[in-house]
Amino acid sequence: MPKHSVFFKSDNIQVEVDAGTDLLTASRLAKLEMQCTCGGEGTCGKCLLKVVSGSVQTTTVMHGELSVACQTRVVGDVVVEIPPESRLTGNQVVIGTVSELPSLFRFDPLCKKVCLQLTPPSLTDPSSDASRLLMALRKFTDRDVELDLSQIRFLADILRSSNWNVDVTYVEIAGKAHVISIDSHNHQACLFGIAVDVGTTTVVVYLVDLLSGSVIGQEGTHNRQAQFGGDVITRIIYASDESCGLEKLQKAVIETINYLIGNLVDKYIIDIADIRVIVTAGNTTMAHLLLGIQPCYIRLEPYVPAANCFPVAKAKELGLNVHPNAVVFSFPAVASYVGGDIVAGVLINGMAKEEKLTLFMDIGTNGEMVLGNQDWLVSCACSAGTAFEGAGITCGMRAMQGAIERLTIDPHTFTVNYSTIGEIQPLGICGSGLINVLAEMRKVGIIDRAGKIQDVLTARIRRLDAGKQFVLAWADETAGGERDIVITEADIKSLLRTKGAIYAGMRSLLKSVDLDMSSIERVYIAGGFGSYLNIEDAVEIGLLPDLGSAKYCFLGNTSINGALTALISSAALEVAQQLAESITYVELSAGNLFMEEFISALFLPHTDLNLFPSVGS
Amino acid sequence: MPKHSVFFKSDNIQVEVDAGTDLLTASRLAKLEMQCTCGGEGTCGKCLLKVVSGSVQTTTVMHGELSVACQTRVVGDVVVEIPPESRLTGNQVVIGTVSELPSLFRFDPLCKKVCLQLTPPSLTDPSSDASRLLMALRKFTDRDVELDLSQIRFLADILRSSNWNVDVTYVEIAGKAHVISIDSHNHQACLFGIAVDVGTTTVVVYLVDLLSGSVIGQEGTHNRQAQFGGDVITRIIYASDESCGLEKLQKAVIETINYLIGNLVDKYIIDIADIRVIVTAGNTTMAHLLLGIQPCYIRLEPYVPAANCFPVAKAKELGLNVHPNAVVFSFPAVASYVGGDIVAGVLINGMAKEEKLTLFMDIGTNGEMVLGNQDWLVSCACSAGTAFEGAGITCGMRAMQGAIERLTIDPHTFTVNYSTIGEIQPLGICGSGLINVLAEMRKVGIIDRAGKIQDVLTARIRRLDAGKQFVLAWADETAGGERDIVITEADIKSLLRTKGAIYAGMRSLLKSVDLDMSSIERVYIAGGFGSYLNIEDAVEIGLLPDLGSAKYCFLGNTSINGALTALISSAALEVAQQLAESITYVELSAGNLFMEEFISALFLPHTDLNLFPSVGS
Repeated sequence: MPKHSVFFKSDNIQVEVDAGTDLLTASRLAKLEMQCTCGGEGTCGKCLLKVVSGSVQTTTVMHGELSVACQTRVVGDVVVEIPPESRLTGNQVVIGTVSELPSLFRFDPLCKKVCLQLTPPSLTDPSSDASRLLMALRKFTDRDVELDLSQIRFLADILRSSNWNVDVTYVEIAGKAHVISIDSHNHQACLFGIAVDVGTTTVVVYLVDLLSGSVIGQEGTHNRQAQFGGDVITRIIYASDESCGLEKLQKAVIETINYLIGNLVDKYIIDIADIRVIVTAGNTTMAHLLLGIQPCYIRLEPYVPAANCFPVAKAKELGLNVHPNAVVFSFPAVASYVGGDIVAGVLINGMAKEEKLTLFMDIGTNGEMVLGNQDWLVSCACSAGTAFEGAGITCGMRAMQGAIERLTIDPHTFTVNYSTIGEIQPLGICGSGLINVLAEMRKVGIIDRAGKIQDVLTARIRRLDAGKQFVLAWADETAGGERDIVITEADIKSLLRTKGAIYAGMRSLLKSVDLDMSSIERVYIAGGFGSYLNIEDAVEIGLLPDLGSAKYCFLGNTSINGALTALISSAALEVAQQLAESITYVELSAGNLFMEEFISALFLPHTDLNLFPSVGS
Repeated sequence: MPKHSVFFKSDNIQVEVDAGTDLLTASRLAKLEMQCTCGGEGTCGKCLLKVVSGSVQTTTVMHGELSVACQTRVVGDVVVEIPPESRLTGNQVVIGTVSELPSLFRFDPLCKKVCLQLTPPSLTDPSSDASRLLMALRKFTDRDVELDLSQIRFLADILRSSNWNVDVTYVEIAGKAHVISIDSHNHQACLFGIAVDVGTTTVVVYLVDLLSGSVIGQEGTHNRQAQFGGDVITRIIYASDESCGLEKLQKAVIETINYLIGNLVDKYIIDIADIRVIVTAGNTTMAHLLLGIQPCYIRLEPYVPAANCFPVAKAKELGLNVHPNAVVFSFPAVASYVGGDIVAGVLINGMAKEEKLTLFMDIGTNGEMVLGNQDWLVSCACSAGTAFEGAGITCGMRAMQGAIERLTIDPHTFTVNYSTIGEIQPLGICGSGLINVLAEMRKVGIIDRAGKIQDVLTARIRRLDAGKQFVLAWADETAGGERDIVITEADIKSLLRTKGAIYAGMRSLLKSVDLDMSSIERVYIAGGFGSYLNIEDAVEIGLLPDLGSAKYCFLGNTSINGALTALISSAALEVAQQLAESITYVELSAGNLFMEEFISALFLPHTDLNLFPSVGS
């Protein structure tokens, strides 16, 4: 097969590929990460790049000078250029504010280090090295202590070279204490843990001092799995259909975590071997992919995960760059679409300990929610779709530098005033901007309650073959300078479906326990997207119920804070396990209820205006 | 460095070695196993071979035409020949008679296989694959069931490809059930276990049908570790002093077990993957070496093993050729020199359940013994030395083809009539023969009570520089035809030390509980050597106490039968663990008692003839 070179100009990287290779694959070979929401199916149009010179064949339409990389095949040597908006970098990552340890849990780190001064053996006390060690550990733990073979193999030498004075690190799990390592005693000994929020879009890591319980530092970045697909469904398909797909996805997230740990280790100058425990929280698919578990049945009816409760793994078997014998815990999940991240949120938001009826929700690709109080908890997930993450929206993008996040539309001139993340020229529009734009367009009468663009007299509204669209920013205002940033009727339809799904999910969950919206005494909103959400806008478009903003509370990244809590309070994981088992999962796709609610919610704000008394019609 | 070839003539194998390499090392490269009791120190003189042609340098005396391989270095291309008596083959292996399962234990195999027909998931029953499986297993076990990550990884596919009908194999250990494998249901499913006696000299393997509890076949051979040294001490030194010594010794014993399993698998045409559990019993050093645990402190005062209780290992981590996920159990030990083989013996001989005061002993390199009854058990080990295995005895050899095992000496002519194993021409004399020869020489007056050779008029007695010796077989009667088979005064001294140590051990053990020989109501003798022992001879020389032969009972290989019992009765290993913890170990090297007893026992039969009323003075 003939070979051709692909030169990525501004990155100054060249790769050799077989003739016919697509440019997205070439970018992966070059280790350049591109947006790829659809997993390379050619449907999301996010992997745009510019072919500067050379021969290519493409099966899709060009976007101005830009080609869709996954649909463009190399037929000769080519020079290409990846524009900033196609790169997987600079995500706005909510690494959260580290709050006080919730008073629900007392400080008792999951991993402990104790110093043992053993009495050396003698002819009158010749018990084995292992029994001597275990006997001394009895003072610290009443659980059965397990030493593994690799520890016993070198126990004799460590005990003698340390002059019988060793530091033992161990974790207590399910009635047993598992020894992580036995080292010569060191007065300056440190002990660190890592909390990880494994999000579909972003990964956040905390470095935690387990001797004091304090968070030393935090880092976040995009999940490198994004190069294989933007949402869990695309990644599940990639894992099951592509050769070594599961391995590649696992490797990508492990590399992401290692990259973040590496940054923290360098920044705070700590020894990687002093990191002895990791707690991860993520949705059920992320947990499967992190551990290398086949996730393919999660997306197929009846939506069954391989496991909701995950075995403890060793860092070395996952390839995590910490002490090789460090243990890796994963938060247990409730169901395929209510994962460990949600359980982590319920663990720390306290709703399971209080009388107040609370709705806890995490709005992202899926709208996951848990309703209940100290007596009962029900949960559901509605496949909201990725519209709020910019996928499937003509000029949608993630919350990255250059994304329009707020705007106003002049009710008379229809002039658009916007602000962008990083206050640079706009590249597109992110989720909070999209909610805002719907609310504004409705307010000024550009769209009707069904989301149809009206025949309002402004050059910003135009009718193309594909339907009507409204221009938010003209090409010459944008960073690229080539395309207008627009919102189309099709985009609005997508957004209505997304917000409708979430609202219908809430209504269905309430109906499953025979309650209505007014019973909700408090709404907790978690997640990165939640943090940037404007409650008034969200109520205005019918995404959130009209309960008055006093009932709303943003919790930030509860997934990472749940993982942190588990690290510094050993009881927390056991409570999380009980929570995961006690939360009843309501499958929305069973029966017609959800579909009826969904259809009623495809209006701005809803077909039933009585549900939104504060919103003008 | 110049290279030379070494050609092993009758094996038709040639190897290339660096100049200066010794011929024992060359034989290992050629994968030809030679006797090597001393571990290559040049002291045992067992690795004799004939240099047919070529240049060698040697630092020791030649034995006729034979050179000591470990002390002979290659200085040019050489052709050599290994004589039969130097080869590590044809050991007499006691694979024991498989008796009925001791009535102490009921049939309840350690590893179980159950068939589960799971209800497929549905929208109204969407629990995870893992919970579905665990829920179904609840019917069979009330223990916490553990699935490991590798099992969860492929669970989804196995459940669906089997149409939710699977066979689960598991073992129950310490309150938990560990799943070994999950397979599509098979009506013809088999389930096998392997019991292993890991002896210093020989290894014995039973193939057991765990569905019926019957022993399908048995195989035994020499422990391939023997090429690195004949006894545990030499091997411990090899493990700690040689580069990769521990790894080489571990590999040698694993290869030995794999070889035996391979023979059984071929012979009985079974699938290796149907072997799901292995139970091993061996002395403490053998257990360390099998598991790759550093054993070096076992031989140094205060004689402390790394562990007496060994973690469960996976077959694949040890390199055993069975189902990769098969679990490997090791019998727990009492102390450095009272190992799992002895615990296995106590487990099945019933002494710990009866009122009768029993002495249980295993005479080999070490004389290990346990004394007691249902109320208490004490044990000790005396380093008897390897004399009864032929080591350090001029013409001593293991119980192999050609070994003199019985003889009589004519009281008038001093003519020797002998019989050999395999009834071929003699190559040397083995343990039972050596005991017999001492008894006979004493009876006919060739030696006095101190073991000194008397000036009796016969050509068979001759005085050399090194001392006196008695000829058992003239060179022309022997298989080699080159050397007389003799017993020297130095040999006799070694044998007296060996038998004296064992007798002194018994006396010391009794004194530790303030009892005397006459309190012993029964003596159980275990081990390969024990099976060939003549009680009268042994009492005659003062090796065994003069209790009357009715009190003696030979149990054969209790180590393998203990391992078998653990395989087919899951309670047995837990009982073994309790036994190992409850047996009190008496360290003979602490205090003067043993040494006083030992000195008194260096006579035939003893200084105190009152202890041996039946033996004529």
